[in-house]
Amino acid sequence: MKLNDRGLLIVISGPSGVGKGTVRKALFEMKNHNLTYSVSMTTRKIRPGEKDGKDYYFVSREEFERKIEEGKFLEHAEFVGNYYGTPLDKVDALLDQGKEVVLEIEVDGALQVKKKMPDCVMIFLVPPGKQALYDRLRGRGTESEEVIEQRIQKANREFKKAKLYDYIVVNDEVMNAADRIMAIIRAEHAKTERSIHKYMELIGEEEE
Amino acid sequence: MKLNDRGLLIVISGPSGVGKGTVRKALFEMKNHNLTYSVSMTTRKIRPGEKDGKDYYFVSREEFERKIEEGKFLEHAEFVGNYYGTPLDKVDALLDQGKEVVLEIEVDGALQVKKKMPDCVMIFLVPPGKQALYDRLRGRGTESEEVIEQRIQKANREFKKAKLYDYIVVNDEVMNAADRIMAIIRAEHAKTERSIHKYMELIGEEEE
Repeated sequence: MKLNDRGLLIVISGPSGVGKGTVRKALFEMKNHNLTYSVSMTTRKIRPGEKDGKDYYFVSREEFERKIEEGKFLEHAEFVGNYYGTPLDKVDALLDQGKEVVLEIEVDGALQVKKKMPDCVMIFLVPPGKQALYDRLRGRGTESEEVIEQRIQKANREFKKAKLYDYIVVNDEVMNAADRIMAIIRAEHAKTERSIHKYMELIGEEEE
Repeated sequence: MKLNDRGLLIVISGPSGVGKGTVRKALFEMKNHNLTYSVSMTTRKIRPGEKDGKDYYFVSREEFERKIEEGKFLEHAEFVGNYYGTPLDKVDALLDQGKEVVLEIEVDGALQVKKKMPDCVMIFLVPPGKQALYDRLRGRGTESEEVIEQRIQKANREFKKAKLYDYIVVNDEVMNAADRIMAIIRAEHAKTERSIHKYMELIGEEEE
């Protein structure tokens, strides 16, 4: 029996190259999970085969900018001339349905989310060492030395943001990291601040 | 890879009759755990077959009272004329060895522990409903109506202490409760305040 029925907003972040996507994928492949994605909104053109509301919500630049002003995004960013953002109302609706909404997101975006929804669960994924990350950033092998150097500088700045998160999870083995995140989700549901309300109902007491 | 090497002090408490002992037993029967008990200290006489340092540390009343004054107990209580207590130094030594020390303890004792060691993990075990607990308290069948009534009154007072704990875990099924406690232990090790120090070492940065 779970005392907290509302889903959790799980923010998985960490320095560039740490393997956020791989860990997120492993999470969704686990058994008995109740995880879901939130579909992002974008101003980029819809591509053949994409569906509005499935791949993205496709909107005009004007509409996106109006939504920014109205505070309708959990986070948003501009990338090669297009906006991308996570609509707050869509996430809220999923949480109300009891779904755990997983956002896999860059450090800057994650900190925006924390401000908008402070009871989200902030997880900082880290490599088992700096060198492991540098090797990964180099290993992609398709970029120039200059681009790689910029990425390393960026990762070095991002490393220092760990203290702003609730949890630090080492991505030494993908399944270890995914298991630990699942444990965090279970534990967070049992946290007193999330469960006291239903508990008081259960025992028929008014909260003081 | 775990970023926090020190063990956790896990305090399992809850209203009388909730089944703390059964859940604790189920925890210790799980695979791959790193849990341990702390041996209590008492002033009661050693019984045939008991071993000092295994069943209890047996000490004189004078010694126990001196230790109370010196603040050497995580918690202590008097019960039918004898003292019982949890020696702080023994628990500390086990935590330093990386063991998770499990204390299964009454509500009053648990709150003493929290004061002495604020970074302990306080888990409040609750029944799936008040009636379930009343039935259990009655079900033992060996006590008079008056004694049962006293127990129910005590449980009713204890129910209200939930908000002083970190987690509320429903004991609907013993294995569910034990699984959830295991998840809490894994999650607590990943908490930023417990893991930031080793993380900063790992990436070779000074803490700011």
